[in-house]
Amino acid sequence: MRIMVLGGDGYLGWPTALYLSSRGHQVSVLDSSVRRQYDEELGSGSLVPIESLRTRVKAWERVSGERLRVFHGDLCDADFTYDAIRAFRPEAVVHFAEQRAAPYSMIDRKHAVYTQTNNVVGTLNLMYAIGEIDRDIQIVKLGTMGEYGQPNIDIEEGWLEVEHKGRKDRVLYPKKPGSFYHLSKVHDSHNIHFACRIRGLRATDLNQGVVYGIETEETALDERLATRFDYDDVFGTALNRFCVQAVIGHPLTVYGKGGQTRGYLNIVDTLRCVELAVTHPAAAGEFRVFNQFTEQFSVQQLAEHVQKAGAEVGLEVSVDPIENPRVEMEEHYYQATHTKLLDLGLEPHLLSETLIESMFAAIERHKDRVILDHILPRDHWRPGVGAPSA
Amino acid sequence: MRIMVLGGDGYLGWPTALYLSSRGHQVSVLDSSVRRQYDEELGSGSLVPIESLRTRVKAWERVSGERLRVFHGDLCDADFTYDAIRAFRPEAVVHFAEQRAAPYSMIDRKHAVYTQTNNVVGTLNLMYAIGEIDRDIQIVKLGTMGEYGQPNIDIEEGWLEVEHKGRKDRVLYPKKPGSFYHLSKVHDSHNIHFACRIRGLRATDLNQGVVYGIETEETALDERLATRFDYDDVFGTALNRFCVQAVIGHPLTVYGKGGQTRGYLNIVDTLRCVELAVTHPAAAGEFRVFNQFTEQFSVQQLAEHVQKAGAEVGLEVSVDPIENPRVEMEEHYYQATHTKLLDLGLEPHLLSETLIESMFAAIERHKDRVILDHILPRDHWRPGVGAPSA
Repeated sequence: MRIMVLGGDGYLGWPTALYLSSRGHQVSVLDSSVRRQYDEELGSGSLVPIESLRTRVKAWERVSGERLRVFHGDLCDADFTYDAIRAFRPEAVVHFAEQRAAPYSMIDRKHAVYTQTNNVVGTLNLMYAIGEIDRDIQIVKLGTMGEYGQPNIDIEEGWLEVEHKGRKDRVLYPKKPGSFYHLSKVHDSHNIHFACRIRGLRATDLNQGVVYGIETEETALDERLATRFDYDDVFGTALNRFCVQAVIGHPLTVYGKGGQTRGYLNIVDTLRCVELAVTHPAAAGEFRVFNQFTEQFSVQQLAEHVQKAGAEVGLEVSVDPIENPRVEMEEHYYQATHTKLLDLGLEPHLLSETLIESMFAAIERHKDRVILDHILPRDHWRPGVGAPSA
Repeated sequence: MRIMVLGGDGYLGWPTALYLSSRGHQVSVLDSSVRRQYDEELGSGSLVPIESLRTRVKAWERVSGERLRVFHGDLCDADFTYDAIRAFRPEAVVHFAEQRAAPYSMIDRKHAVYTQTNNVVGTLNLMYAIGEIDRDIQIVKLGTMGEYGQPNIDIEEGWLEVEHKGRKDRVLYPKKPGSFYHLSKVHDSHNIHFACRIRGLRATDLNQGVVYGIETEETALDERLATRFDYDDVFGTALNRFCVQAVIGHPLTVYGKGGQTRGYLNIVDTLRCVELAVTHPAAAGEFRVFNQFTEQFSVQQLAEHVQKAGAEVGLEVSVDPIENPRVEMEEHYYQATHTKLLDLGLEPHLLSETLIESMFAAIERHKDRVILDHILPRDHWRPGVGAPSA
């Protein structure tokens, strides 16, 4: 298939592009490089050194013999987006091209407005381009499990059957997102659902859990193919951060009581999920939602896994609960359905101490690159703390 | 109370400002005049001639002795918004300052992006300004009944008690909006709900039905106080459009089968509802939703009311069903709860033939201003028709 990976220079976009390319698909990568710009803004960076997109793409051609066509630009630039879709004529777009860090969106007003504008407008432009150029181009869009929040009822896959006052309906699952970033994804979901209803687009919303892992089969083939790995307080996600903390001897920073429960998945499962969605397209007019994760953990459970794996390789790992920078429930009900991708054939790579130990080893090689200032969270959620600026 | 009316130069914002001023509140008006700019863009205009905001405000001072302070600018300009809130220090803001026409948002990609950016960013800036300057300033925000769509279950006031797999939760009512405009209001509702949870803001979302009417007690005091009255295919709303069509002898343009049912209310009830919300503030951290309408009608029923009132004053009114330019169900279940404003003391002015006849009389005085080209709808919703441009 002809597949365009939007945001194909990022943590997941890049390995997804390689994976799909290695599976015989014709792949192109669209990216604005803005993720690299955030690094400069925040003074942070990937733990693992990464090459420029140009170098990566050349390295992949050497290694695999496959070419990745590159479109450098911003989805918010409608002309660029239309031109790219016209030029490559994909059968599917995999849409990772959004600002994806909750803490980044909570820094201040400007970052909240930027996140919502960037994500919503980019996706609107994409939908219009597809609506005009070829309605059959399916959209596989990265959403997040964080859109659901922490409801007191079971989380279903995007839709909920409701019975109310003796009548029934099937409705979009009601969302309670916990940051302006998560909200932007909820806005996207509503917009895309509408475009499916009104213009017959085909869309799959992948409500993804927290991804962990540092390598995939393809990125491991050559150092120049490495994907970025974030451990900082803004872009780093729970397990990845804990592994870095364990290696450098920093106590694991569990936020609050640590009972916050989420869905998690291995980076290699992300690639497979995307492939399953792309190769089993949504019908014309269908807005489909898959909950894309393989296991649920509380933050405390994750910390204990890391501690245990650390003990096995001689790392002394302590856990240091710190004040939660986020406004969220720290003890709550959480039960999320996630059967649709399994039904399509996903075979999960579950979290194991072996995997954590291999992450330790990869991190060990680059531990001199850790910027200690960026291990502890800054406080953006609470009223009166980290007050947003005009 | 000190009340700032955002969008206070518009169809409802202006009479709301006058009404609140006449009730002894200290009122200011914030507006960017962009509604007047849409008129120029579309080549349309208010049936009733309206004065500039400056002239209106002067006229009101003559008539009532009350001054309305004016802030001219755009909520999307954060500096302006912060400065205005700091300068006036309202106890409540009444937020009408959004692009409010579904057909306008559906013209093409640019209008969709404009509508969502304008509405969402303006509201984000407002929330941040209030969050930083004074969290107790309550937000009374105009939403729309159109956010709910046409669900097969009863519509409740913003929230739904759900029982699912033996567990219960209270969730935001799931929405299925029918245009990029309606979607922008859904995005706003999610953003505001979050700000209430996270920063303790006080907000009331007024999910308003379709408003009809041409005059209020205050605008009738002086010709220069008239509010705008739209009858065109983009900004005109159902009953108002039908009354104009009846007066000029044009068949009433019922879209499709005419079974589309919505909540409606008289413009004078809008003013009272806003006052009730403002004078009974939401608690700190509360996100409250009121369904603001007084009666449900199908489009066909509205047309019949106009026909009947026409017959009584000697107008021969025919009904001409035309192809529906919107993608919506034309026969559907519709039952929406609307008790909260009644509980606060609203005494509805229900639709009567007398009212319709008084609208006829007002329209009669200006019927030479009707632009016939703008009576029939253009087609923006359907795939392949009125294809949006890049």
